[in-house]
Amino acid sequence: MHLTQAIKRACQVNGNGLATINGDRRHTWLECRDRVAKLAGALRKLGICDGERAGILSLNSDRYFEAYLALPWAAAAFVPINGRLAAPEMAYWLNDSESLALFIDQPFVGMMDDLKPQLETVKHFIYVGDGETPDGMLNYEEILTQADPVEDAGAGYNDMAGILYTGGTTGKSKGVMLSHANLMSNTMNCIPALNFRPGMSWLYVPPMFHIAGSVAVTGVTMVGGTHVFVPAFEPTAVLTALQDEKITDLLMVPTMINMMVNSEGAGDYDLSNLKTLSYGASPMPADVIRKTVELIPDAEFVHAYGQTETSPLISMNGADAHRGEGLKNELFKSCGPVVMNSEVKVIDENGQEVANGTVGELCVRGPIVMLGYWKLPEQTAEAVRDGWMHTGDGAFIDDEGYIYIVDRTKDMIISGGENVYSAEVENTLYQHPAVIECAVVGVPDDKWGERVHAIVRLHEGQAVSEKELMDFCHTLIAGFKCPRSILFREEPLPLSGAGKILKRELRAPYWEGQDKQVH
Amino acid sequence: MHLTQAIKRACQVNGNGLATINGDRRHTWLECRDRVAKLAGALRKLGICDGERAGILSLNSDRYFEAYLALPWAAAAFVPINGRLAAPEMAYWLNDSESLALFIDQPFVGMMDDLKPQLETVKHFIYVGDGETPDGMLNYEEILTQADPVEDAGAGYNDMAGILYTGGTTGKSKGVMLSHANLMSNTMNCIPALNFRPGMSWLYVPPMFHIAGSVAVTGVTMVGGTHVFVPAFEPTAVLTALQDEKITDLLMVPTMINMMVNSEGAGDYDLSNLKTLSYGASPMPADVIRKTVELIPDAEFVHAYGQTETSPLISMNGADAHRGEGLKNELFKSCGPVVMNSEVKVIDENGQEVANGTVGELCVRGPIVMLGYWKLPEQTAEAVRDGWMHTGDGAFIDDEGYIYIVDRTKDMIISGGENVYSAEVENTLYQHPAVIECAVVGVPDDKWGERVHAIVRLHEGQAVSEKELMDFCHTLIAGFKCPRSILFREEPLPLSGAGKILKRELRAPYWEGQDKQVH
Repeated sequence: MHLTQAIKRACQVNGNGLATINGDRRHTWLECRDRVAKLAGALRKLGICDGERAGILSLNSDRYFEAYLALPWAAAAFVPINGRLAAPEMAYWLNDSESLALFIDQPFVGMMDDLKPQLETVKHFIYVGDGETPDGMLNYEEILTQADPVEDAGAGYNDMAGILYTGGTTGKSKGVMLSHANLMSNTMNCIPALNFRPGMSWLYVPPMFHIAGSVAVTGVTMVGGTHVFVPAFEPTAVLTALQDEKITDLLMVPTMINMMVNSEGAGDYDLSNLKTLSYGASPMPADVIRKTVELIPDAEFVHAYGQTETSPLISMNGADAHRGEGLKNELFKSCGPVVMNSEVKVIDENGQEVANGTVGELCVRGPIVMLGYWKLPEQTAEAVRDGWMHTGDGAFIDDEGYIYIVDRTKDMIISGGENVYSAEVENTLYQHPAVIECAVVGVPDDKWGERVHAIVRLHEGQAVSEKELMDFCHTLIAGFKCPRSILFREEPLPLSGAGKILKRELRAPYWEGQDKQVH
Repeated sequence: MHLTQAIKRACQVNGNGLATINGDRRHTWLECRDRVAKLAGALRKLGICDGERAGILSLNSDRYFEAYLALPWAAAAFVPINGRLAAPEMAYWLNDSESLALFIDQPFVGMMDDLKPQLETVKHFIYVGDGETPDGMLNYEEILTQADPVEDAGAGYNDMAGILYTGGTTGKSKGVMLSHANLMSNTMNCIPALNFRPGMSWLYVPPMFHIAGSVAVTGVTMVGGTHVFVPAFEPTAVLTALQDEKITDLLMVPTMINMMVNSEGAGDYDLSNLKTLSYGASPMPADVIRKTVELIPDAEFVHAYGQTETSPLISMNGADAHRGEGLKNELFKSCGPVVMNSEVKVIDENGQEVANGTVGELCVRGPIVMLGYWKLPEQTAEAVRDGWMHTGDGAFIDDEGYIYIVDRTKDMIISGGENVYSAEVENTLYQHPAVIECAVVGVPDDKWGERVHAIVRLHEGQAVSEKELMDFCHTLIAGFKCPRSILFREEPLPLSGAGKILKRELRAPYWEGQDKQVH
């Protein structure tokens, strides 16, 4: 259970095969291992080794991939930074994790004036972009060339491989500590379910800072496959890469798949090499499945469900659910049975397991459950009890073990594949002096699946426009978290007997006549 | 990483599906779990729980399978007993492991008069056969019916699940301690390589006391498949079960496959459900592969290699190596690339890793490496260094990561799938007063692959016949270990500079013009 074992296996079974393709940059597995061992050597010289952490703030690239493997090679841990965050949020992740270094890509250099003064522990900035290296930064290729390759430091099993931050349900981000064994257990679950196999080539489309975006790093490496990178999602770039690099497998969120299959000229690309199209974050509408099958008749779908705390995949639903009877019976709306080496159960409010078909909170136990939340022992003890991770998701399990997610206890909105925690947005709105009461809910949106919608009541006699309030949010939190629509109301928000805002009631009028498709 | 997780998953995904078929006895997964939980309750009442051990001396059966799962359910460990051993050998395994109980099947009842007086720790005998329960034994079904089901005790990860004895290279058996994590890691490796999947049904043919015979216990259970048992290998019984129970997958040794395909009327059976035929212990002759393909055109072959100390599978070579180019290029003679989640390397006499293509000792590192040898810390430290299990097998790895086994440093003979350690047989021969010097080697045998052959020099003036010496061995060790042929010679055996008998030289004339097909 060493993350670095994957790269050694790749060298053994496909040493001269292509490891990474990033535009014109191509490296074989033997070259890739050499680069990783050199980068680890460079990191070690900088003191980034043996339990220390480094952040990665980058678009998808081969250098992201190498850093993701070199840090564990040096027995350090990676801290992927969500590139869409506002500077204060990024600073919180880097300071909280006490990261010593930051890998930084070209598009984020402009933020540095704002970000740098807020950083407390980062001493080294390693520039992974192309073109001239900004002042005060180390050049990635230079430090790599100057370093001697080092032996794998031997980190593994319960050693921490990374801290992955999630938006916090109580408004503050929590760092999820994942071990080598966590990530390798997830990998072993993915190999059969996502059909990882020799000769495959994987395209990275969702951002690699999401754990779902990086799920292939170890799995595709283990089988000696090829990793292909596009910097970020853009339909034409994805279609071009699928065709030109003969991509066989990838993962996207339904929003992206929908945009891709509906983009102009999609039918003109040769997508015949594509075998498996995985998706997560929400179920895929049947129409999108049908439309995708028209475009790529041989592709098989896998609907995956998970969360960062479970490394991440809890369940996967394969090809059979997406064709013939499965499609007709809407079996694809389930996120499938539990992965091979973990357990799931659904519990009621008293912690008792419920019967099949009954909705309750989904709990997961097994080697995929995180080490805990970084420096938050109380929140860890609350989330993981007796080895069972309490997901916060409402779900039921049918008689064949198929899991259906029906609600999120944690009150999360998934908008275009991004998780938005209502509490975090509400806390931001409450900081505006005019706001006396607010609730943030997900409402249906044709493009994003769900849209962040706020319902706001103002102090008597105060006034603020929708635009003013949105602009206010943009100064404090990432753009994707900010409300895209605001409803002002004068009467108090509806409360439960226990005094909690009845979100279900607020949501209901928006969802009338629609499935609430949450995952 | 709980062995018992497999049975819970089976209940969740296929609760009403068939778990076990043993002649007329059939149980669904929900019934099977209930029986396992009750048997664990009965064991707990007898004190066989929480780290204690129990032996299993039985032909293949559903009860063997249940005991194999119920012992870990009670946080105890199983000690499978090789049914072909002589009574003193069985007693050694049971006494050494300090087993408190013995599950015993009908064919072994006759040995009890001999065995029982030699046992030091076994207090309970649990009869798993049919018909009347012998005096002084508990009836399996009775204790199960009378017990209350108990909750899974929660053993997992590095807790010991079993002690599996191997013949010792220095003549004495060693108990290999395997943990829950060991066996579950092996299972996760097998799922993709052996294509374990929902809807499969597995036939147990080699004895379950071999770790290879029980490799399917957790894997087929995890996917909710069906386990079908025949008591022991017999061509017609196997062919009948394959047809009548619509078996999809099984593992045999090449000797068995050869006997089956050559048995009279083999072509009259409907074997069309068979998908994957795995084999181990030795490579399969190309003729046997071709003959098997004639009989079962759609079956795919997997050549597996491993040892008890590695839980057991180190590498697997799949279907591609057994057809078309793979067959032509004899790629099937390789035992394949390393399993997914472990590492292999080949080292020279100084412990240095050698280049591809160079023969040396094969070493394995990863979660499949045993906890150690039971009560033998020195031998454990000798075998496992820095996490690397030193297999004792001579091998080379090619540029595509394919492993070829060329010699066994541990001097082992594989005869009809049974491991015979030369040293053990030699030690036995040396106990005869007439023997001054001897060497035991494997020589080619049409039926058994290899045959146990002894080369013996007698004390001057002494005489003993081949038959007398064979009979002498039969009183001390299992029949399958006894020499099947003996060559008497008068000149001293050839020695190396270091004074070791030159076995290679003794073996050479027998193997002239033949591949030494060892695995």
